[in-house]
Order: sequence, then structure tokens, then C-alpha cells
Amino acid sequence: MNYRAVETTEEYVARLETGADWRAEIESLADAVEAEAGWFTALGAVQDAELWFYDQDTCEYAPIEFDEPLEVAACVGNVSWLDDERFAHTHAVLSDDEGRTYAGHLNEATVWAGEVHLRVFEESLEREYDESTELDLWL
Amino acid sequence: MNYRAVETTEEYVARLETGADWRAEIESLADAVEAEAGWFTALGAVQDAELWFYDQDTCEYAPIEFDEPLEVAACVGNVSWLDDERFAHTHAVLSDDEGRTYAGHLNEATVWAGEVHLRVFEESLEREYDESTELDLWL
Amino acid sequence: MNYRAVETTEEYVARLETGADWRAEIESLADAVEAEAGWFTALGAVQDAELWFYDQDTCEYAPIEFDEPLEVAACVGNVSWLDDERFAHTHAVLSDDEGRTYAGHLNEATVWAGEVHLRVFEESLEREYDESTELDLWL
Repeated sequence: MNYRAVETTEEYVARLETGADWRAEIESLADAVEAEAGWFTALGAVQDAELWFYDQDTCEYAPIEFDEPLEVAACVGNVSWLDDERFAHTHAVLSDDEGRTYAGHLNEATVWAGEVHLRVFEESLEREYDESTELDLWL
Repeated sequence: MNYRAVETTEEYVARLETGADWRAEIESLADAVEAEAGWFTALGAVQDAELWFYDQDTCEYAPIEFDEPLEVAACVGNVSWLDDERFAHTHAVLSDDEGRTYAGHLNEATVWAGEVHLRVFEESLEREYDESTELDLWL
Repeated sequence: MNYRAVETTEEYVARLETGADWRAEIESLADAVEAEAGWFTALGAVQDAELWFYDQDTCEYAPIEFDEPLEVAACVGNVSWLDDERFAHTHAVLSDDEGRTYAGHLNEATVWAGEVHLRVFEESLEREYDESTELDLWL
């Protein structure tokens, strides 16, 4: 296990814009406050969603699409640098009108309402290619 | 996107009381420490639960009831003012004895065991009616 | 409800080791930084998993096993002392290649990739037997 001490220098709460993209909104927040790295949790609802599942054999992501309103029951993620841009690595648990649940890596989703808590770290985190998983990881 | 810098002035861990209501317990904690606003994550188990799903067409919540013991696999939420009372906006992911999962906006649930981390912000957050979603939102 | 003010003295981000055990990795981190108590959220993916469901009638845990790759869509937990060892009480929401979701108390899981944020508290938390739930709880 690799770990690093970090220091939270700033914290923000944000309300994501109805009709915007969930992940892009978090990246916009990170850009606006010039975060070198950060960690967030969030909740809310979306109008549609595209989750990604990572196939550990082929080492490729496969999309799973939902074209219906869903609650965002839980959302956990972090902000770091990927190819010189801030990337919000975002996982989410979504639920429908019967409480049925769908989850995974959140690529995109149209915000209905979203509430986010972001802590910004003094340290910078940068993703680099990891040979064993073929993922871009930090540390 | 609307955002605001916040400062965490106090942090608490709490053990929710067996037999009490999950959300009311978090609101009691917020009242006890006189939180103007806050953010929490939690885990545990409940004896029953009422989730709410927000219908984005009719703009009304519909309840989904569970009368069985469930784990609280993840719980994310925040505390803010709503109609002059502290309101714990609480989303949760619940699971049963086969690992099947149910999630949404948690209205009420009878605590079996609950562990909460609450950060209290110096700033106050107040919910007000939002015309586009017909929800009470802050910022 | 029982609660206690805590103070975060240190924070860490960690990348869990591919092939190691998810919960043991978090406990190794807690050992390495000599945490008396802490709180974490995490996300990632695992190669298999064993969830536990607590039967509130018999007061025993029953295992639910998954022998397939799964995303860790959300993970919330805390570190405290249990029988003189650091124990990472870990709940997780897992998801498969169709977005289907499984959740509960995470006993063990083989890490594919894992990203954790751990806050370390100055105060110590210790679990003790609770008669009404037959669980080991703190506070």
C-alpha cells in the first residue's frame, strides 16, 4: 500500500446546476478553486446516467446507460491531475422509483439536483499509467 | 454551479440509539451541538426504513417502505436550516440478507446500530424553494 | 444518542495494493500511522468479496460471497480498537458489469484498485460489547 499525508487547506459546499453534467460540474468547481487535489462526497438526483464497469480481464471500460430519473444515493470521489487536466474520479450509487439500485464508475449524468462537499488538499496528486491494472492511478 | 467556502469548526462521532429514528438522531446531534450547517457520512443497520423517491415530472416524493432489518451500507448527507429547524438531508444505501440493495432519500428508519461522523461548519446554510426543481435547496 | 467531539490531527490518501485484502490494507495504513481512531471513505474495484449481513434476531453475522470482479461504488468506515487491535469497520456498495449492486458489511475482498481518504482523530475509540445488539460498539 502506498500512502501520503495530505493537508486540507480549503473546503467547499456546492450545488450542482440543474441540466449540467454531474462530473463536469465537480471538475468546474475544482478548476474554479484551483485545486491541486481533493476529495469529495455528494448526494442528489440525476435525469439520466452513464456508468462504466471496468473489465479486469480485457482492461477496458464498458458503459451501462440509464435514460431515466435516478436518485444519487451516494457519491464518493477525488480530484487529481490526468493529462494536465483536473479529473474527478467519481463513483456513484443510483436508485429508481422502487428503490432498485445501480452503481459503478460515473462517467456522465445530467444533474437534477446535486449537493457536494469538496476538501482541497495542499498537495498535488497526478495520475500515471499503472501496468498491472492498466488504469491511471496516483501514488 | 453555486459554491461557497466553508470552515469546519468542530467534528463529532456519534453512536445512534437503538430503537430511535435514524434521521431524527442526526438532527438531535446537530441541535445538541448547535450546528449552523454540517456534512456527515454514516454506516450501520436499521430495523425498517422508509425511502423517498422524487418524481421529476410531478415534483413530488413517493415513499418506498421496508419492514425488515437492513444494513446501512452507505449514508451521506448534510445539515442545514429548513423552515427554522435543522434538517438532515439524508441519502442511504440499504442491503438485505442476500446483499440485495435498496437506496434513496432516507425519510425515516429505526436504528439498530449507527455510527456517524459529523463535521460542523462555521457558516450557516438555509434551504429555500427552488422553482426549477420544486425542491428546497441551499446556495 | 452518544456523541463525542473529535479533532482530526492528520489526513492521508492511500492507494491500496492490487492483490491485497481491502480491509487489511486499511488496517495496515492505520497501524503505519499509529491511528488511535479514524474515519474513511473509499472507492475502487475488487476481484472478489465477502460481505456480512447481521441477523438482528439471532445476533450473528452470515456471509455472502462473490467470486467475480466488482466495482467498489462507495465505501464508508471507521478505525477503532477492538481487542487491542486496530479494526476497520467497513461497509461497502459493490456493483457488477450490468450495474447491479450488492452491499453490506465488508469482511474481506481482494483489491483490484482502491483509493482511500483517512482522517486520523486525536481521541481514541474502543469497541466494547453492547448487550442490546450483541455488537462491539464504541461510545
